[in-house]
Amino acid sequence: MEVTRKNYKDCLNTVYSAIEEADFLAIDGEFSGISDGPNVSALTNGLDTPEERYTKLKKVSNELKLFLLPISLLCRYITKPFNFYIFPKPFNRTSPDIKFICQSSSIDFLASQGFDFNKVFCHGIPYLNQEEEAQLREQTEERRNQHANGVGTPSFISPSSSKGSSHVPEEHKDFINKVVEKVEALMVNSEKTLDLEPCTGECCLKPCLCSDGLAWFPKGLHVETVETEKKERYIQISKVDEEERKRREQQKLEKEQELNDAVGFSRVIHAISKSGKLVVGHNMLLDVMHTIHQFYCPLPEVYFKEVTMCVFPRLLDTKLMASTQPFKELITNTSLAELEKQLKESPFKSPQVETAEGFPSYDTAQEQLHEAGYDAYITGLCFIAMANYLGSFLTPPKAYISARSKLIEPFFNKLFLMRIIDIPYLNITGPDLQPKRDHVLYVTFPKEWKTSDLYQLFSAFGNIQVSWIDDTSAFVSLSQTDQVQIAMNTSRYAESYKIQTYAEYIQGKQQEKEKQTTKTWGEDSWVKPHYTCSTTSAFGYSRYSCNECFTLKRSISPMQGEQGADDAQITDGWSHYSYPDTTGTKKMKTDGV
Amino acid sequence: MEVTRKNYKDCLNTVYSAIEEADFLAIDGEFSGISDGPNVSALTNGLDTPEERYTKLKKVSNELKLFLLPISLLCRYITKPFNFYIFPKPFNRTSPDIKFICQSSSIDFLASQGFDFNKVFCHGIPYLNQEEEAQLREQTEERRNQHANGVGTPSFISPSSSKGSSHVPEEHKDFINKVVEKVEALMVNSEKTLDLEPCTGECCLKPCLCSDGLAWFPKGLHVETVETEKKERYIQISKVDEEERKRREQQKLEKEQELNDAVGFSRVIHAISKSGKLVVGHNMLLDVMHTIHQFYCPLPEVYFKEVTMCVFPRLLDTKLMASTQPFKELITNTSLAELEKQLKESPFKSPQVETAEGFPSYDTAQEQLHEAGYDAYITGLCFIAMANYLGSFLTPPKAYISARSKLIEPFFNKLFLMRIIDIPYLNITGPDLQPKRDHVLYVTFPKEWKTSDLYQLFSAFGNIQVSWIDDTSAFVSLSQTDQVQIAMNTSRYAESYKIQTYAEYIQGKQQEKEKQTTKTWGEDSWVKPHYTCSTTSAFGYSRYSCNECFTLKRSISPMQGEQGADDAQITDGWSHYSYPDTTGTKKMKTDGV
Repeated sequence: MEVTRKNYKDCLNTVYSAIEEADFLAIDGEFSGISDGPNVSALTNGLDTPEERYTKLKKVSNELKLFLLPISLLCRYITKPFNFYIFPKPFNRTSPDIKFICQSSSIDFLASQGFDFNKVFCHGIPYLNQEEEAQLREQTEERRNQHANGVGTPSFISPSSSKGSSHVPEEHKDFINKVVEKVEALMVNSEKTLDLEPCTGECCLKPCLCSDGLAWFPKGLHVETVETEKKERYIQISKVDEEERKRREQQKLEKEQELNDAVGFSRVIHAISKSGKLVVGHNMLLDVMHTIHQFYCPLPEVYFKEVTMCVFPRLLDTKLMASTQPFKELITNTSLAELEKQLKESPFKSPQVETAEGFPSYDTAQEQLHEAGYDAYITGLCFIAMANYLGSFLTPPKAYISARSKLIEPFFNKLFLMRIIDIPYLNITGPDLQPKRDHVLYVTFPKEWKTSDLYQLFSAFGNIQVSWIDDTSAFVSLSQTDQVQIAMNTSRYAESYKIQTYAEYIQGKQQEKEKQTTKTWGEDSWVKPHYTCSTTSAFGYSRYSCNECFTLKRSISPMQGEQGADDAQITDGWSHYSYPDTTGTKKMKTDGV
Repeated sequence: MEVTRKNYKDCLNTVYSAIEEADFLAIDGEFSGISDGPNVSALTNGLDTPEERYTKLKKVSNELKLFLLPISLLCRYITKPFNFYIFPKPFNRTSPDIKFICQSSSIDFLASQGFDFNKVFCHGIPYLNQEEEAQLREQTEERRNQHANGVGTPSFISPSSSKGSSHVPEEHKDFINKVVEKVEALMVNSEKTLDLEPCTGECCLKPCLCSDGLAWFPKGLHVETVETEKKERYIQISKVDEEERKRREQQKLEKEQELNDAVGFSRVIHAISKSGKLVVGHNMLLDVMHTIHQFYCPLPEVYFKEVTMCVFPRLLDTKLMASTQPFKELITNTSLAELEKQLKESPFKSPQVETAEGFPSYDTAQEQLHEAGYDAYITGLCFIAMANYLGSFLTPPKAYISARSKLIEPFFNKLFLMRIIDIPYLNITGPDLQPKRDHVLYVTFPKEWKTSDLYQLFSAFGNIQVSWIDDTSAFVSLSQTDQVQIAMNTSRYAESYKIQTYAEYIQGKQQEKEKQTTKTWGEDSWVKPHYTCSTTSAFGYSRYSCNECFTLKRSISPMQGEQGADDAQITDGWSHYSYPDTTGTKKMKTDGV
């Protein structure tokens, strides 16, 4: 179902109830640009740490925009696919004029897939993140307080009272007290308005009158600045009759509705977040990052993992799942199109998913790949096929495995990392893997050097792998760790280049960071200290305070999982790696996934 | 006529002949964002110098893109309107992935006018600027030289010759000479191919063989690197038969055609430039800047005026014309919509312009304002109406004044400057106006200060005008120049703020600039020294070398103007101002246009 500004208010209830019913949701965003386009090297390095990769992606993705968010909601074998077209239409003249980057390659790709740009730019659903929403509510509130006194709830007290007097400058107290007398007279006499003496300067008393001094005004008074013909400004206080009062109440309701409309698509994301339902995506790190920064808050420097868990308590990346045991051995190519094809073949079974009535249906035989919404839909199919495959290991085998089964928990909250040699995923609910990199050297050299120069330099040490960092530095992985010391010794007196071990490099970086800031990004601050790392502990906390953006409210009841009694425990798929857990007994093995 | 990638090749000849016939062209671009949106203050200051304003606009407009360039070509009272939809579609995988900024307010404005974004993004005509075109040609040439030797013209000579030997490293000469012998044998024997010995390392001899040593190859040989099963690489030289040779020639022609297609819309702009025809726009500085940076070269630090004159030798800004005498007294509002209305009333006469056959026509009665192309069209009408009004002053009066009449020369090459208090235009063909600013003070203060603080500070000096520069500085214009010294004296011992005269401020800025760079941007370098300032001298020079971007080729024959014998000289409209000419006798008067 296509959802644009034209029909989204009518669709909201359909969307809400679809979220309520769903087992899980599959998403796949279309963006105005991609973070890692042709110039891969600038953004990705095969030996990035997850933290470094996040920082690089954050920088780029803050500037891009999500144009379309297809969401397939799946409940058993029935799907409800929605295509949400999204555009940051300015709410009013004072709302921020959002600038975003379009990349010609991405636009051209979308165009070649028949993407309808008019649906985005002309009819896209607006949205606000939580900060913008709060600001707008504050502005509206302020304006109401300034322009129409008397209809709100008085929040300050009279200047004649001892409590409130601190708000009123000493030199204005006499003036204010006189005004109070006059206003009290106005309330009982037959006059309709009261004109105060013309103001000097910038009519400086008005804010004082409105937001402090006279906020005790009885209902039915309105304060306004009026200008005389001589350009003198004075304050006019007028009685507001019942009809006027009702008109103002109505206006207030309308403003409230306008505000809700401006929050727009963010309400859908809030509902998904609140539901705590599993959100599935294929190579979904960027989708998650974009969703957070457009609909919640700017991407944080640190605490990205915490914020993610607040917004999406359960995530599953099908690319990561497919490249993990037991799927890793069976699936040769994890690109979405290939994955979908391979999951149609034995030992997998393609699920027979039907589209709910009233929704347009997709035909996997016709390969509408990259057609808006189709990718999200087949991502959902891939997840079901892989989950059901896990069910075949149970005794007795189970044909359908739900999104709440314990069997799939090992795949939760691990987001695939593109092109990192030895760290396959970003672990949202715990510390990241720390593979041994003692065969890696950090080399700095003149900017004229090319890959061939590095090959030549290390020609005595067997096969090497070069991961460029920038013009003048690269990681060089040796095939044998015992060659590291020899290479280091050889380079001791070199002048044009410099070699450090990976450990030395990391140490140097850490020291530099500590110099620059008190906030460190080590294992301890990338995951906040009190944040425990087991998967289930990520749920159920409430009002988690994220000091980098603002308070995210969350109150999810603990997962009502299926009784896992008949679910045999299977290998979690990462047995090659040990989690950097507290026991510290397991050794890391880096075989390059 | 709408022109997109689909039909532009078929339209090119129509466009070229329309340019040939035209008296003048009217343009009005639609952009992905505007340089001076709601946040005017950040970009414009009422006391900017033209140079400062250009620098500010340049920074912003480099990031934006022209989506649509409507061009109305007018010949007497017949118009041919074209709407060119433009998009930087990547030419191939290696071509630069262009990033540009979209501004939500601009997109929303275009959407509200019924703009068709799909026409831009899906079917926009591609383009290259001259640098990109040159690079692409070079790349193609290089690839051809590397892959297919023997079909091109040999440009280097044999290594056995003494002349060419300098290109071949000494240690390879023996190898090369042996190859030459073998190749000479190949030419006469019955073998089809010659395999050289496997290369070591990076097959380092190949470039040497191809681009230098063996470029004397007789026609009919092809050089290629081949890999053995053992991953050893060697060079294979093969005879190419006549059929193969033809196939390669054909390929070359196709590549050439592809290249021309990639240059795309730039060819239209080149044709306009070459024609030397008058280009008319309304408030056209940004249109000019965008046209230059998208289709010619990045906007230069200095020499913008020179580059502009190379690209568009004759420009006329209708907003500037309308705010100049004799129009200034008659036209109260120079916005395009209002101008068009006022020019329908006496003493002006609305020209009866017909649309050429086969072109869609506009109806000014229906006010299709901002509809793509309509603005360009009425800009053309406004120009004709104003030009014809000038004709009414002749004896005998002339009803039609052509774009080549001397009467309109005073309005040439002066581009309207938005919101500058005392400098109405950027003078492309000479130094800019330098109004006296001795009533202006430069004030720096703590960032907490607001306009009201400045009003209070200067309350003793009569009316003031505040032009914000940034958070901590502003220009304050006093109404009476004789108050300047008093204000300066008063501030002598102030600690929280600081006051300088405008002259001191300019001097300080100049000194700072001189410290930073050897290139100065004073009156002398903003216009290159040898560049003379009279209007007509801007035409007719050839191969003007612009050292900031690249050599712009121009060879326009001197303007074939109408004989101006019966054209009475009229006031140029800027009599309030004196040009800062060499005589230096006239005094500036700043009455704030």
